[in-house]
Amino acid sequence: MNKKAILFKGNGTDASDMRYASGFAAPDDFLFLMHENRRICLVSPLEYDRARVSVLPGVEVRRSTASAVEAVKELCAELGLASLTVPGAFPLGLAEKLRGAGLEVVPAEERLFPEREFKTAEEIVKITASLRAAEAGCRRAIEILRESDIAKDRTLVWQGQPLTSEILRAEVDCTMLKLGMIPTGTICAGGLQAAQPHNQGSGVIPADFPVVLDIFPKSRTTGYWGDLTRTVVRGLPSDFMRRAYDAVLEAREFAKSCIRPGAIPSEIHKCAANILEKHGFPTGHDEHGDHGFFHGLGHGVGLDIHEFPRLSPKASTPLRPGIVVTDEPGLYYPDKGGIRLEDMVWISPEGKTVTLTEIEDEFVL
Amino acid sequence: MNKKAILFKGNGTDASDMRYASGFAAPDDFLFLMHENRRICLVSPLEYDRARVSVLPGVEVRRSTASAVEAVKELCAELGLASLTVPGAFPLGLAEKLRGAGLEVVPAEERLFPEREFKTAEEIVKITASLRAAEAGCRRAIEILRESDIAKDRTLVWQGQPLTSEILRAEVDCTMLKLGMIPTGTICAGGLQAAQPHNQGSGVIPADFPVVLDIFPKSRTTGYWGDLTRTVVRGLPSDFMRRAYDAVLEAREFAKSCIRPGAIPSEIHKCAANILEKHGFPTGHDEHGDHGFFHGLGHGVGLDIHEFPRLSPKASTPLRPGIVVTDEPGLYYPDKGGIRLEDMVWISPEGKTVTLTEIEDEFVL
Repeated sequence: MNKKAILFKGNGTDASDMRYASGFAAPDDFLFLMHENRRICLVSPLEYDRARVSVLPGVEVRRSTASAVEAVKELCAELGLASLTVPGAFPLGLAEKLRGAGLEVVPAEERLFPEREFKTAEEIVKITASLRAAEAGCRRAIEILRESDIAKDRTLVWQGQPLTSEILRAEVDCTMLKLGMIPTGTICAGGLQAAQPHNQGSGVIPADFPVVLDIFPKSRTTGYWGDLTRTVVRGLPSDFMRRAYDAVLEAREFAKSCIRPGAIPSEIHKCAANILEKHGFPTGHDEHGDHGFFHGLGHGVGLDIHEFPRLSPKASTPLRPGIVVTDEPGLYYPDKGGIRLEDMVWISPEGKTVTLTEIEDEFVL
Repeated sequence: MNKKAILFKGNGTDASDMRYASGFAAPDDFLFLMHENRRICLVSPLEYDRARVSVLPGVEVRRSTASAVEAVKELCAELGLASLTVPGAFPLGLAEKLRGAGLEVVPAEERLFPEREFKTAEEIVKITASLRAAEAGCRRAIEILRESDIAKDRTLVWQGQPLTSEILRAEVDCTMLKLGMIPTGTICAGGLQAAQPHNQGSGVIPADFPVVLDIFPKSRTTGYWGDLTRTVVRGLPSDFMRRAYDAVLEAREFAKSCIRPGAIPSEIHKCAANILEKHGFPTGHDEHGDHGFFHGLGHGVGLDIHEFPRLSPKASTPLRPGIVVTDEPGLYYPDKGGIRLEDMVWISPEGKTVTLTEIEDEFVL
């Protein structure tokens, strides 16, 4: 059987499969076709020179000013192709036009590069470099929170000004920018905002409430991500939050000890949830919204910030050597705030579990 | 005729139509359906609380943990829908699954919100705020270049260290971060790198060659972009580059005077190209690659950095009041470097052409 050709359209910045297989990333969309041993990038004249020096060995780069439909039609005619496999996220509009031109276009049911889940030593180096930058950003945030004074109204003051999430985030992001990272959605969320796992934080940061610092930069040069979360408090946290912190830390460490070859992700997730419940922190939903631990325990990290494998309640495929996952249990209470603690863990080719994260854990500053 | 329902899937951060119509942006994908007077967001529990406070008035927010296929099937059953219009970029894989479930899924041939091209006063304020941040970043870059010394080997030295594109870009981006912007692809390209319009720049910056500073931040809170390019040189530019700078500046200003209601974009582009050619800078292609002015003159800016209208050689729809476009001619020579000068221009509701950009033009520092 002739292997079908695979066609991609995207911009390599977001479409990490294209970057993985071509070596090229661009701000604008380009086309990439794989057929037998050939890999061909079709790029605009604007990208041509950069593409030629960026692509992996063996990848052909062609300049194209035609529309995507015309460019693909010509390429298929040249290579004698009548059928194209495309990613599930391939744009429907272009697919229909290619079909209208007589080509078969079939969305892939499965991932096109399942091997991305298993990292090479070189990829581990790149991921770790981004994680180190996240740690530098986190240390900067902790330094600022530690330096902050507590005003009479129990809000934080830094260098004579109210300390806001915006100021704290800009300091974290600048630290990472200077290390060659692209900061995308750094979370510095205090007070009740920390109860919403995706809230990036805004406004003046109160004392006495945990501040969630979730920091995930992408390297400008390699495209690989790091991911890290610490939760700290300036002032006096409630007993409830102290107990929640201890429970989350124990859940993270116990889950980490379960991450090994052959382990079932859903069971690791359940182990973490059970520890939180055992400490008196069940997960549920009431008139205030969700509370407890209502997200997955972790996810793979590489050229995507969220990739395979997932450590979620539904993931049943046993873990294998080579994966890099986050281990990030959390507890969230709309009327009290939130805690999340996240390390990155690698299963080495020899099957050893390695914590990639180096920054220490601390809570009360 | 009943208007068909429109379905979106995307993450509001990249999929700006979703942000425009729902008011919500999230790092993860969500579903958004418009039908008659109803607008419904289906989001994960992680996004639910944020979505409720972010959406535009009248938009319903629902929590959903079902797969996208199941969620859409349920919603269509509830609303009695059998046919969905989707954007051209809608993922093919999901479209096929919905079709398999008996729904008609039709990609839109045209833009779904052509009115995005015509900005409200509120949008002009948001765009201008992002442009001001870009100007602050640009001023920082110019300040650093001006402060730089020229070493014996004609490279730049700042604060005792070689000045690299990476350092310069980090300083520009930090300036903008502190103003609430997300810097994405800031270009600080000197030497021969400036001859590649999308080259972000890397390594030590040489004196005597123009440095292209193309700065386009997105506001973290509003999602609107600003876009600005200046080209400066520290040291002594060649006569060729001095003449190229003057030609690009004249082309930009003349093109600006042509941007008015009723003008044809392709003709404005040609006017700019003609001025460059008249000054002795034709566009062409040889064994070194492209040279001259080989990109479009400009593009609309709003919730996308590149949107309608396009000021390109192919764009034939007359301009109308309300648009915001960039006016950015450039000249690029693989063996000499590059020049690009970019202002943002608005046609007010009264049909008056307004330059939104305030930063002055200067070349030799």
